[in-house]
Amino acid sequence: MSVADFRAELGDIPQEDNPRIVQQRSRDHYWYSPVLKAKLDHVSAEVVVSPRSTEEVKTVLRAAYRHGVAITPRGAGTGNYGQAMPLSGGAMLNMMNMDKVIEIKRDRVLAQAGAVLEKMDHETREAVGSELRFHPSTYRMASLGGFIAGGSGGVGSVRWGGLRNLGSILGLKIVTCEAEPRELGLVGEDVLKVAHAYGTNGIIVEAEMPLAPAYDWIDVIVGFDAFMDAARFAEAVALQDGLLVKEVSPCAAPIPEAYFNRHKPYLKDGQSVVLIMVAPVSMDSLALFVDHHKGEMRYRADLATEDEKRRLPPIYELAWNHTTLRALKIDNSITYLQTRYPTIEHVRRIVEMLGDELPMHIEMTRQDGVVTFSGLPMVRYTSEERLEEIIRIHEDNGCNVFNPHRYTLEEGGMKRTDHKQLAFKREADPKGMLNPGKMVAWENPDFDFNAGKAWLFDGLNAVRTA
Amino acid sequence: MSVADFRAELGDIPQEDNPRIVQQRSRDHYWYSPVLKAKLDHVSAEVVVSPRSTEEVKTVLRAAYRHGVAITPRGAGTGNYGQAMPLSGGAMLNMMNMDKVIEIKRDRVLAQAGAVLEKMDHETREAVGSELRFHPSTYRMASLGGFIAGGSGGVGSVRWGGLRNLGSILGLKIVTCEAEPRELGLVGEDVLKVAHAYGTNGIIVEAEMPLAPAYDWIDVIVGFDAFMDAARFAEAVALQDGLLVKEVSPCAAPIPEAYFNRHKPYLKDGQSVVLIMVAPVSMDSLALFVDHHKGEMRYRADLATEDEKRRLPPIYELAWNHTTLRALKIDNSITYLQTRYPTIEHVRRIVEMLGDELPMHIEMTRQDGVVTFSGLPMVRYTSEERLEEIIRIHEDNGCNVFNPHRYTLEEGGMKRTDHKQLAFKREADPKGMLNPGKMVAWENPDFDFNAGKAWLFDGLNAVRTA
Ligand SMILES: Cc1cc2nc3c(=O)[nH]c(=O)nc-3n(C[C@H](O)[C@H](O)[C@H](O)COP(=O)(O)OP(=O)(O)OC[C@H]3O[C@@H](n4cnc5c(N)ncnc54)[C@H](O)[C@@H]3O)c2cc1C
Ligand SMILES: Cc1cc2nc3c(=O)[nH]c(=O)nc-3n(C[C@H](O)[C@H](O)[C@H](O)COP(=O)(O)OP(=O)(O)OC[C@H]3O[C@@H](n4cnc5c(N)ncnc54)[C@H](O)[C@@H]3O)c2cc1C
Repeated sequence: MSVADFRAELGDIPQEDNPRIVQQRSRDHYWYSPVLKAKLDHVSAEVVVSPRSTEEVKTVLRAAYRHGVAITPRGAGTGNYGQAMPLSGGAMLNMMNMDKVIEIKRDRVLAQAGAVLEKMDHETREAVGSELRFHPSTYRMASLGGFIAGGSGGVGSVRWGGLRNLGSILGLKIVTCEAEPRELGLVGEDVLKVAHAYGTNGIIVEAEMPLAPAYDWIDVIVGFDAFMDAARFAEAVALQDGLLVKEVSPCAAPIPEAYFNRHKPYLKDGQSVVLIMVAPVSMDSLALFVDHHKGEMRYRADLATEDEKRRLPPIYELAWNHTTLRALKIDNSITYLQTRYPTIEHVRRIVEMLGDELPMHIEMTRQDGVVTFSGLPMVRYTSEERLEEIIRIHEDNGCNVFNPHRYTLEEGGMKRTDHKQLAFKREADPKGMLNPGKMVAWENPDFDFNAGKAWLFDGLNAVRTA
Repeated sequence: MSVADFRAELGDIPQEDNPRIVQQRSRDHYWYSPVLKAKLDHVSAEVVVSPRSTEEVKTVLRAAYRHGVAITPRGAGTGNYGQAMPLSGGAMLNMMNMDKVIEIKRDRVLAQAGAVLEKMDHETREAVGSELRFHPSTYRMASLGGFIAGGSGGVGSVRWGGLRNLGSILGLKIVTCEAEPRELGLVGEDVLKVAHAYGTNGIIVEAEMPLAPAYDWIDVIVGFDAFMDAARFAEAVALQDGLLVKEVSPCAAPIPEAYFNRHKPYLKDGQSVVLIMVAPVSMDSLALFVDHHKGEMRYRADLATEDEKRRLPPIYELAWNHTTLRALKIDNSITYLQTRYPTIEHVRRIVEMLGDELPMHIEMTRQDGVVTFSGLPMVRYTSEERLEEIIRIHEDNGCNVFNPHRYTLEEGGMKRTDHKQLAFKREADPKGMLNPGKMVAWENPDFDFNAGKAWLFDGLNAVRTA
């Protein structure tokens, strides 16, 4: 590989090679995980390339293919698993210059991959009163392409499910990494070939997404003395078909008092809370429901002054991975897990067994039509062994864990390869130039996921010893 | 009771006493049930009164109270259980002159009780691009007040649940039947006191309902050779959170070929179908899903010509109670049941046991957050005894039946009295003038619902022998 030859072919496409900036742009939020932090801290690309058009993306990929330079696409770099980190060095492909909203209809939007989600919503709200069905809590920074390639769901998933669901992504335009890069349009189930593939098998340049009606969602915090009452209430809210909510998240004490700094005046020590975003049309019904469940209405944005609201972050920035982020800012021994609890009884059992070592945080979601407890519990981290033990305790008790302490697709997800993604990589990235090291099946088809060991990408050693 | 004295106090409020017209207006769709047909055929009021304002409603109820004249409210008279039939004679209170839409916001609408649902949707679509969350298939005739007082759910309930759910009715204004009738505003759970109370405890004059975004819903018919494949597909569609649908209804062969006359050119003999209304944004995903389930796309309104579409009724008029209506028009020995099948296995068992005696028709709905098989199976009626037996077979197999062959609230519904409705009747209708004979607990507090006998309203005998 010759990065110099590669760079020479890029014409006036913006490049950046200041090592400090390049290293910064080679990182995402991998440091959420002490495990990944140790493994990936040294990783850096050699250059950041920032194309401004699909044509320029093609130019970059043509040169990368010819000169064997690894390409790691990057949106805002808010992923948590080192997905956007260049394990083999090479070039970062910064997509944030391609940020245009191309077409808005009342029920769908077409935008470039580098469009920031909040900005998209702003434009579609103005134009047609609609917004994305759901978004990650990194809404204000994250890119559309990064969300599709690296995310799963978020605020709104309690109603609309996640990115993997049929109909959640209407279409993608990608560019392949070949001698002569092609633009391919993917629709229907074909979008799943590149959705959540970490950019390993094609660079997303455009995406079309369905829109839902936009509302002036009201932030609400409800307090409960017992966490299980909070969890029960959260489930009940999510099950109320007539209550239009966008976010429902129970957080166990002491998470709120310890980490929700700016909301502190509204909270009561010792209480667990449920974070809610509700449509104005359902606010009264929700208030009634809170009473029924003997919850305490601790904060209602519709009754707050403009001044109060200015001081507070939106509630979704207390939720999803922001819950952990807020904790990390105060206590860097905190990390987290991604789990799924089949029933509330499973939640109860895990909470009982792990207590304050695992401050519980749940996001209510719909998964294939079923209201589900998606866990993002915090972990008071002591060692990698104990973390593995906590994972085992979950699994032994019938709860799923999606390990966020792994940088590969397979190990973080379902512990098996998505063969459609693999097959598509053969087509779209025959030389394996795109985000090397993230798809185990490509790098090491014989790896045994059940052997109990994390897979280590060879390229990473190469870089480390380079 | 003196109807003459009552009438004398009504001033210029429109009255109608032509016996033929009065009898016609004293009927609803009770004749769906051979059982009710036999029991209620002779029922008639003496006069129809048609107030044009809330003040006039008060005038009517004041006079009714003073002179002991029974008042039976009536919207469009499309109820199926004789709910709007004047078992004690007296006066029909025709609400259809009070049909104004009072206020439209993007997420809610306030209208008078006599507003026709389709007309409301027309106005709200024009004004703000929104529509009612769900409506009965009698949409083009039914009134808002009649739906709230006598209906339960319908087209849209697959997403939004039914009228009984929290948040489905935002507020009601009712008039009581007392010496000095009062206007009462009901919000929150208080709306349930008069919702689905058949007008026995207050006359609804206004209602505020939440709105959902309006779409140009696409009518779709999917064919399957085996009914259970149709049912499985229907459930799967309803479970797809990302597929925006308003209606999903599997109908077993031979229902489609035998009764869906105008759609006949699109159908295939021997096939069962799933009737679907899907938002344009989800049409492609739905088509993909049909392929996956090996269904046959038999009709897609988005690919039909204007001319074809003009010839066809909207698909919701093949669904809900319209399925039975279409059958009844062709074969008057048909009747139906209202059932609930906890799982698809329950559906299978009942279909297997009852075969063509019970041509299966299901509406997929959400009930408290759970996708549910709400059955409206047709019954090839032979005798009341056999009908009771079919009900027992359901119950013995763990399936609920809501008997549509009863005119009382209790017997048609949960087989017990709604004590809040009863308590509210004591307040709002102390003399029991409103729709007498429909609330067993009021007329006969000691009636034993488990004795296996239908309750017979005494007043009915009085009228019969009069
Ligand atoms: C505080 C916090 C909260 C979060 N909350 C959520 C949440 O609620 N839900 C959720 O799903 N995630 C969440 N995340 C993870 C992440 O923020 C989101 O998935 C986000 O959408 C990623 O967007 P990005 O632009 O930052 O992507 P990046 O991190 O830049 O990239 C993500 C992945 O996509 C690849 N990629 C980026 N752009 C392209 C492209 N154009 N073509 C092909 N591949 C590409 C990258 O190589 C990488 O593998 C959270 C993370 C943090 C730190
Ligand atoms: C073909 C067909 C299909 C149907 N489909 C559905 C369906 O999908 N879903 C469903 O829920 N129902 C359905 N129904 C039943 C019925 O059509 C609906 O419930 C409809 O909304 C009733 O409205 P209406 O104006 O005709 O009421 P009516 O039949 O006139 O009255 C219904 C009940 O409400 C009372 N009432 C009427 N107005 C008032 C008022 N202002 N204040 C107090 N009480 C009042 C009446 O006394 C009566 O007890 C169907 C019926 C038929 C015949």
